[in-house]
Amino acid sequence: MMDIVMASSPVHGAEAEQAAKVSVLRSLESVCKREGDGGLEQRLAELRAFMAGDLEQVEAALADLDLRPTPLHKSASHLIDAAGKRLRPMCVALAARVGEGFGPVARDYAVAVELVHNATLLHDDVVDLGDVRRGVPTSRTLYGNAASIFAGDFLLVEALLRVRRGGDLVVLDRALAVLGEMLEAESLQLAKRGRSDASMHDYLRVARGKTASLFRWAMFAGARAGGLPVAACAVLERYGEDLGIAFQVIDDVLDASGAEDETGKSVLSDLREGKATYPLLLAMERDREVRAAVHTAGKGDGVQLDPAIAARVARGLVETGALDDARAYARMLAHRAAASLGEIDRDGPAIQALIGIAAALPERKR
Amino acid sequence: MMDIVMASSPVHGAEAEQAAKVSVLRSLESVCKREGDGGLEQRLAELRAFMAGDLEQVEAALADLDLRPTPLHKSASHLIDAAGKRLRPMCVALAARVGEGFGPVARDYAVAVELVHNATLLHDDVVDLGDVRRGVPTSRTLYGNAASIFAGDFLLVEALLRVRRGGDLVVLDRALAVLGEMLEAESLQLAKRGRSDASMHDYLRVARGKTASLFRWAMFAGARAGGLPVAACAVLERYGEDLGIAFQVIDDVLDASGAEDETGKSVLSDLREGKATYPLLLAMERDREVRAAVHTAGKGDGVQLDPAIAARVARGLVETGALDDARAYARMLAHRAAASLGEIDRDGPAIQALIGIAAALPERKR
Repeated sequence: MMDIVMASSPVHGAEAEQAAKVSVLRSLESVCKREGDGGLEQRLAELRAFMAGDLEQVEAALADLDLRPTPLHKSASHLIDAAGKRLRPMCVALAARVGEGFGPVARDYAVAVELVHNATLLHDDVVDLGDVRRGVPTSRTLYGNAASIFAGDFLLVEALLRVRRGGDLVVLDRALAVLGEMLEAESLQLAKRGRSDASMHDYLRVARGKTASLFRWAMFAGARAGGLPVAACAVLERYGEDLGIAFQVIDDVLDASGAEDETGKSVLSDLREGKATYPLLLAMERDREVRAAVHTAGKGDGVQLDPAIAARVARGLVETGALDDARAYARMLAHRAAASLGEIDRDGPAIQALIGIAAALPERKR
Repeated sequence: MMDIVMASSPVHGAEAEQAAKVSVLRSLESVCKREGDGGLEQRLAELRAFMAGDLEQVEAALADLDLRPTPLHKSASHLIDAAGKRLRPMCVALAARVGEGFGPVARDYAVAVELVHNATLLHDDVVDLGDVRRGVPTSRTLYGNAASIFAGDFLLVEALLRVRRGGDLVVLDRALAVLGEMLEAESLQLAKRGRSDASMHDYLRVARGKTASLFRWAMFAGARAGGLPVAACAVLERYGEDLGIAFQVIDDVLDASGAEDETGKSVLSDLREGKATYPLLLAMERDREVRAAVHTAGKGDGVQLDPAIAARVARGLVETGALDDARAYARMLAHRAAASLGEIDRDGPAIQALIGIAAALPERKR
């Protein structure tokens, strides 16, 4: 089904080391940016000012990790330095600020959630043959798969040390449970990979386990660190769950809709890797030819995608309305997430920021 | 340096599934067996009767893991079912029995230490291209590298859930610290791999981190579960540390001394994989030609070893006395471990069993 060839002599590319560090706040804006929505842009500028200090603390703590020049540590720091959106730490910080504010415990949780996320990316890139991530070569192509495997383990342990340091055993127990859910989802995804009988039911189980569970934990951990009562913690947790699934669906849409102009390597990479996505499943339900094309792609080598197949699937995604409807589903989830915040009898900049993120996330273009 | 090719279509070999389950107690005897020592054999028969119930509970708990027929879960259960020596759970059980006995918490710790050990084996086999382990094909050759990576993560999380369930936060914190030490050692080993400047200092750091730390934790966790006072916990912990290094040195000796009769695939596999071992380092210190041969082997592909090089190294290991002196070093450590038990003001079958294991371990032949 799939040949995974490990990097023979890792390329220690200086160009990659120097890859421009993406500013967290600029990337936040790009996540949230919706052209022509002046109100949203205004809200984002406020969010930026509001969150800057918290996220700087997270960055400083990430930079403080003991990452020496060994292959393992370089493998970890290469990925962490490439920044990413830091959406999960942002969830921790905002949930904490709905409560009493962003203190050292919330900071530990914010760092931990980013470390868990990066740990899963390191292992996923080894499993999925990922060559490019966050616009730069993946750690495994630079330092080898072995270093990436151990680096993922290392980040996971570093994350748990920080969660434990927080001193709240409920948060620790949830963290272990969420890690179990994430691996359960990996297990399901691996079992279903390349099989054309994947169902929407399975897709949602995987999205809930792999993506939403960590957003959910981020909101819960932040809420606990902010000293919020049980009911408010539960509301914020549900916000995290809905936002997480919306985030995954939009990720799927972006992976699939790039196919139209055939740019970049990562276009339709989910199809190439035999992964079911929300828009693909919708299009397969609606168009038998798309189903046949996906089935054929599933028999491929996992590395190359037949251009004719790719073009047929890309056309089907548009013509069946699957891409539009996937985005609409994400909007519904995000709307529900924002609406649920009303159950918390609080207002203020943190609640407003969470509403703003929920409004912006389904519209993101990259 | 090294090409790692992932299994393209995993072989689901029925023969491997049916691989005879090694009885824990029979394997304990083979670990401990020293030909011609009637006293030791007598002691082992007693140990067998003494421990049987504890180890059966551990086996039952391992069999109770939720391991469904997905690639991830099969990957984990294949390794766990192949048994192995269960030395680490035995350490937990004996330390607990030095105290108040082997209860549910000790059992959780005993299962956890075996799960951590198996998690590291799953990841190590992916990193080291391991094809055979415990006499059967490795999980990665049967179910693919991807499943092995996630299965290792899964077992690690399952282990931590059990350690947490024990309810002793000191034991949990030690577990997280030990995982950190293990990855630190992996990092050092990876950085030094294939380099002929490896030193005895580095070797001992790796052995302490990769192997001894988990034996140390097993003894500590068992001692805590058995309700022993702090001083006794510390003594048993030191026993675990010494025993663990002795265990690693004997492992090295067995890997290296098989070269004499050139049996099996795993002979000199450490040399092939560019790993420094205790006897190899001794022989390199003492014989310049061995040093040159190891250096040449380090430039190899990590898969094949030039037979002439292998023969030269094998001869050097014997002629320089490196193999004998490595075994002597393990004997010294094991003797020190046994002697330290005198500091605990207790006697009984558990203490006697620990003394017996320390006497037997340096003599093991396979």
